[in-house]
Amino acid sequence: MSFSFVPSGSVTTPRGFLAAGVTAGLKKSGAPDLALLVSETPAVAAGAFTANAFCAAPVQYDRAVIAVGKPVRAVIINSGNANACTGAAGLRDTKATAVFVARRLGVKPSEVLVSSTGRIGVPMPMDVILAGAGAAVKALVPNGGQKAAQAIMTTDTKPKAVAVQVKLPGGKVVHIGGMAKGAGMIAPRLLATPRQHATMLSYVTTDAAVTPRFLDQCLAAALDQSFNRITVDGDMSTNDTLIVLANGSAGNTPIRAGTPAAAAFAEGFVAVVGRLARELVLDGEGVTRFVELNVRGARNREEAQRCAKAIANSALCKTAWFGADPNWGRILCAAGYSGVKINTAKVSLDYEGVPIVRGGMSAGTPEPKQVKAIKRREFRIDLDLGAGKGEYTVWTCDLTYEYVKINADYHT
Amino acid sequence: MSFSFVPSGSVTTPRGFLAAGVTAGLKKSGAPDLALLVSETPAVAAGAFTANAFCAAPVQYDRAVIAVGKPVRAVIINSGNANACTGAAGLRDTKATAVFVARRLGVKPSEVLVSSTGRIGVPMPMDVILAGAGAAVKALVPNGGQKAAQAIMTTDTKPKAVAVQVKLPGGKVVHIGGMAKGAGMIAPRLLATPRQHATMLSYVTTDAAVTPRFLDQCLAAALDQSFNRITVDGDMSTNDTLIVLANGSAGNTPIRAGTPAAAAFAEGFVAVVGRLARELVLDGEGVTRFVELNVRGARNREEAQRCAKAIANSALCKTAWFGADPNWGRILCAAGYSGVKINTAKVSLDYEGVPIVRGGMSAGTPEPKQVKAIKRREFRIDLDLGAGKGEYTVWTCDLTYEYVKINADYHT
Repeated sequence: MSFSFVPSGSVTTPRGFLAAGVTAGLKKSGAPDLALLVSETPAVAAGAFTANAFCAAPVQYDRAVIAVGKPVRAVIINSGNANACTGAAGLRDTKATAVFVARRLGVKPSEVLVSSTGRIGVPMPMDVILAGAGAAVKALVPNGGQKAAQAIMTTDTKPKAVAVQVKLPGGKVVHIGGMAKGAGMIAPRLLATPRQHATMLSYVTTDAAVTPRFLDQCLAAALDQSFNRITVDGDMSTNDTLIVLANGSAGNTPIRAGTPAAAAFAEGFVAVVGRLARELVLDGEGVTRFVELNVRGARNREEAQRCAKAIANSALCKTAWFGADPNWGRILCAAGYSGVKINTAKVSLDYEGVPIVRGGMSAGTPEPKQVKAIKRREFRIDLDLGAGKGEYTVWTCDLTYEYVKINADYHT
Repeated sequence: MSFSFVPSGSVTTPRGFLAAGVTAGLKKSGAPDLALLVSETPAVAAGAFTANAFCAAPVQYDRAVIAVGKPVRAVIINSGNANACTGAAGLRDTKATAVFVARRLGVKPSEVLVSSTGRIGVPMPMDVILAGAGAAVKALVPNGGQKAAQAIMTTDTKPKAVAVQVKLPGGKVVHIGGMAKGAGMIAPRLLATPRQHATMLSYVTTDAAVTPRFLDQCLAAALDQSFNRITVDGDMSTNDTLIVLANGSAGNTPIRAGTPAAAAFAEGFVAVVGRLARELVLDGEGVTRFVELNVRGARNREEAQRCAKAIANSALCKTAWFGADPNWGRILCAAGYSGVKINTAKVSLDYEGVPIVRGGMSAGTPEPKQVKAIKRREFRIDLDLGAGKGEYTVWTCDLTYEYVKINADYHT
């Protein structure tokens, strides 16, 4: 392994990045609600965005900026208003925010990206946003990553920040930092379009020099091992966003696809986004149990994914996990309605390596042993469909009273 | 309208049917758990069964019996054990149950259908089943419909039974009776295969004489207006079953497809299965609100259905309904990730006829008025996607603490 985690790492662990997190006043609670991330030098940018037809104004805006392929300097992120289903006014507000921040930073408007999360369909309170943006610019500091990670939170119970350092072949050390927020409406499917691609919001910084093409490839390849494999509630947001900025401050030879340096960097990159994705589920709304679900023996990868997501999003499986009920019939039931090819007589299921189903029927493991395997904070389920070689892993969680409370009381 | 509801109607309202509900001892609670429905004369049978790959042993058995197309005399139904994922033993147990009941009734084994619901993956306690079946045969009475409706309940809070009388052109009166049970793992997709086609269990009886072909058509046509349009939790069961028995006791000329009599009968039939389907949702696990969701303006009917089901099964929409939160952004969000064509600028949404969204944005209706529209036991949502002429209606419900409680505590 060519990488190691940096203690208390964040988006400002890589050199040449500044960040801030301030209270603009969007949240009734008075918690920080506006984050700003800035690269001191122009950065190669890549992005991945929600597949939702009602994608938010800032998603439309960022997608266009990143498609152009020019360097980026900053991202301004609010966690109080989604700016989705807000029409032409929403797009104007997004652009006005970018222009305002660009002026204060002395960069071009096209070098500033904008992200939003919060309630859908509410006009942006631009006076609050712009006053907050001004304060954020003034609050920028080289070690502001943790504050930024706090300011992007909504129903998250804790900030999610991480960084690794990667030793490239030849000895040069580069850093990759990241931050993310959840915690509901989490079932991203991020699309990597030309030079790009989840209300999960996630930001990755690196001081490595990279070619734009490699950064795109690295991002696209990492999605299925991170954000695209998670689901809390099966609801894909209008605002899911992953943005990567690479500013080259490490002074390495730009990393190109297919090289040993690329492999080393990619390993570190997956470690960062994988950790963030996992933490999103662990801190999902009301979550008490984290489930790693591996489906194999499907006809192909797509069917393995479809089956895994059906189980991961099944209300009956999720409530059983909450109750530490080994009710494996619910898992087979969900697999059975997922619409994929199953050889029922060859199906096997394990909880944490304990045989639960063999040949499509009970494996005869005494129930207390089954309960013991899953009565824990994190556990693994392996399901073999007996129909082929396709495999897919998802990270999911239980469905609890607290989830219902958070989302029934969100507004009223 | 050529039909009217019969007060206290049930599966024994049509002439020539007997029923019983007894306690065999499958349920710890000691509640009735075995029902028997018998036609005094051979009945034309039609059926619709779950599309789940792990369909239960009795589903496999009944499907085969009905596919043969011969008359049927009886259905024996237990509500304590699903007999799903039980392999060859499960099939043997099903057949043994049919043979036992047939002998006691003096009919052929191939004239007896078998249904099960309960926990998946547990061997059938055949001694309990057969002793109970013997008691059920002795308990058969011409007005046993209500008792049978009680005996098929699992987490249902009340029995569901209904009957109509239909005046055929010419004056002959026929009856259609029905019973059903829910109340979780409810998202049926019933398939009507040649001469047939939901753990919703439902049984319809009629004393009308019908041709087998007409009964199949009538059943297939009614599914989309009844059981196939409902969802409680999005989990399609291994055991969903709808069986229709028509014994001809009314002495009418057998009803054939395309005749005025067929139209009159079909209207009554839809009234019965529609009422039962609706009651399944109203009595769904933990349900406090019933939602009729109509999606129109989709490119086609299939897309309207896909969009409606995404909304109906969204944890965020369902918890918002529980909280009487008019949060329309969640509805648009779910439509947006359903994968159907949407003209976002032309989307409109109404709650109980109150404009909520126009042109993809807030219609500006004051929030108290929005809340008032949905803070009730039953309400209607209309969503227009602005993309075509496709339309579909689903009946769904909220997601509550009680649902989580029932399903986390089901076993432990």
